[in-house]
Amino acid sequence: MAAWGERLAGVRGVLLDISGVLYDSGEGGGVPIAGSVEAVARLKQSRLKVRFCTNESQKSRGHLVGLLRHLGYDISEGEVTAPAPAACLILRERGLRPHLLVHDGVRSEFAQVDTSNPNCVVIADAGEDFSYQNMNKAFQVLMELENPVLISLGRGRYYKETSGLMLDVGAYTKALEYACGIEAEVVGKPSPEFFKSALQQMGVEAHQAQ
Amino acid sequence: MAAWGERLAGVRGVLLDISGVLYDSGEGGGVPIAGSVEAVARLKQSRLKVRFCTNESQKSRGHLVGLLRHLGYDISEGEVTAPAPAACLILRERGLRPHLLVHDGVRSEFAQVDTSNPNCVVIADAGEDFSYQNMNKAFQVLMELENPVLISLGRGRYYKETSGLMLDVGAYTKALEYACGIEAEVVGKPSPEFFKSALQQMGVEAHQAQ
Repeated sequence: MAAWGERLAGVRGVLLDISGVLYDSGEGGGVPIAGSVEAVARLKQSRLKVRFCTNESQKSRGHLVGLLRHLGYDISEGEVTAPAPAACLILRERGLRPHLLVHDGVRSEFAQVDTSNPNCVVIADAGEDFSYQNMNKAFQVLMELENPVLISLGRGRYYKETSGLMLDVGAYTKALEYACGIEAEVVGKPSPEFFKSALQQMGVEAHQAQ
Repeated sequence: MAAWGERLAGVRGVLLDISGVLYDSGEGGGVPIAGSVEAVARLKQSRLKVRFCTNESQKSRGHLVGLLRHLGYDISEGEVTAPAPAACLILRERGLRPHLLVHDGVRSEFAQVDTSNPNCVVIADAGEDFSYQNMNKAFQVLMELENPVLISLGRGRYYKETSGLMLDVGAYTKALEYACGIEAEVVGKPSPEFFKSALQQMGVEAHQAQ
């Protein structure tokens, strides 16, 4: 325990991942990873600030938090840093109107965003909605733009569901990058800006976080 | 015309692409590109050998030739070098049993291939069959192999149909390469082996071909 004490000296906050750390998603809402419900509860009882930082881009924060609370976690929507709301800030700042290649479950996060006459594409983990038709539509939108902008909610290769490994958004982003000869802008981990925004929301400096 | 005469000095054979050169594919079998039916006819009447070298991997050679003949081209199945039959040769030579991520239209080319207990994946232009489920199945097959082998029938980014630009096999190959951390083996253009096999079938050396 002394080693932990030393390691935590100066630490004021903890960022926790969700998928694959707290739980494995899947049919029926997924299953918690052993010990994680208790670990979150202990952290929250400690002097440390806690924030959840996820690349989940298939579900809205409201839906995700509902699932996690159902599994026993002490978590609220305001404690979650997720790529969809971070992308919405960027879209607004830069006057971008996205064509959304996203799962229906996360569409509500973009409810306030102007999606008419798109001048960029936002790609998220669309899961089953990664049909050829939907991919091709996003590709065509990009090819018609003079300066194609592709914003990708993460770079994940795959994730684990209870039923097995599942292709993540990064694979489909690569497909569009290659087809259009462009490079996507990533919103989500491992982007430093994304981690910084999570730290800001927690009120903790980078050197004070684990 | 003198310039052409000089340029063709020593040339004994001509390799012709099909999609985007002879015709644009699409609804109702596609449309010929202006002047190409006559150009093929003139080449065939000349002293030059003619062969067709395509990366078409959504249709069998039989189907493709049927379409082209219907559009007015003088072409037979034996004159076409295509990636699916080239892949079949490689599969046989190396004892590979593929999981096929291909369009139903080209499946007949693999009729003689053992696809039980797959030890590789063959990806072609699957078009509408590039569903998330089909992509994920191919991904899972690769991830379960100790030495994952991915054979891609071409590297094309996109092609033009009468209805617009369409994502090609190369984009989906990139997705699987990224997700699995592997590099695909390409059968089809621009692979030198593929061009060489077309020249061999035509009985012409590389320096004698255009």
